[in-house]
Amino acid sequence: MPKVIVEVMPKEVLLDPAGKATARALQRFGDGEITDVRIGKRFEITIDGEVTPKLLEHINEVAKDVLSNDVIEDVISIRVAD
Amino acid sequence: MPKVIVEVMPKEVLLDPAGKATARALQRFGDGEITDVRIGKRFEITIDGEVTPKLLEHINEVAKDVLSNDVIEDVISIRVAD
Repeated sequence: MPKVIVEVMPKEVLLDPAGKATARALQRFGDGEITDVRIGKRFEITIDGEVTPKLLEHINEVAKDVLSNDVIEDVISIRVAD
Repeated sequence: MPKVIVEVMPKEVLLDPAGKATARALQRFGDGEITDVRIGKRFEITIDGEVTPKLLEHINEVAKDVLSNDVIEDVISIRVAD
């Protein structure tokens, strides 16, 4: 069955404390090249049937309204998985 | 600065209760086509300098040891962002 991948990331203007803590932990391990880490979400949505343009439009709405919090997050990508 | 994207998903054999709850919520809204949702993580790692094969190998280790819990999660992708 086809899958639709929705990717959600914290807005660029926000601090993402969990990402910052991860970056600091990696730097303590000696990873000087790593300057920043941001942590977002990846949804794999399994579809029964064909992924029509109408369904993708619907998933677009669902991604904004249900899968993400648009005060603090951006939906950065919606695509059909290969 | 280049970014490396690491994607982590719950193992296929595990239930992913948050994903199941999301799928049920979407089905209640009338999304009969959506049969399953799985929720993973997406890390954006900003690199100061060039992404060398050695650094990618190192990030591969970090992804397995720090960014994911290999009892319940799989690192499904590590790639340099376009």
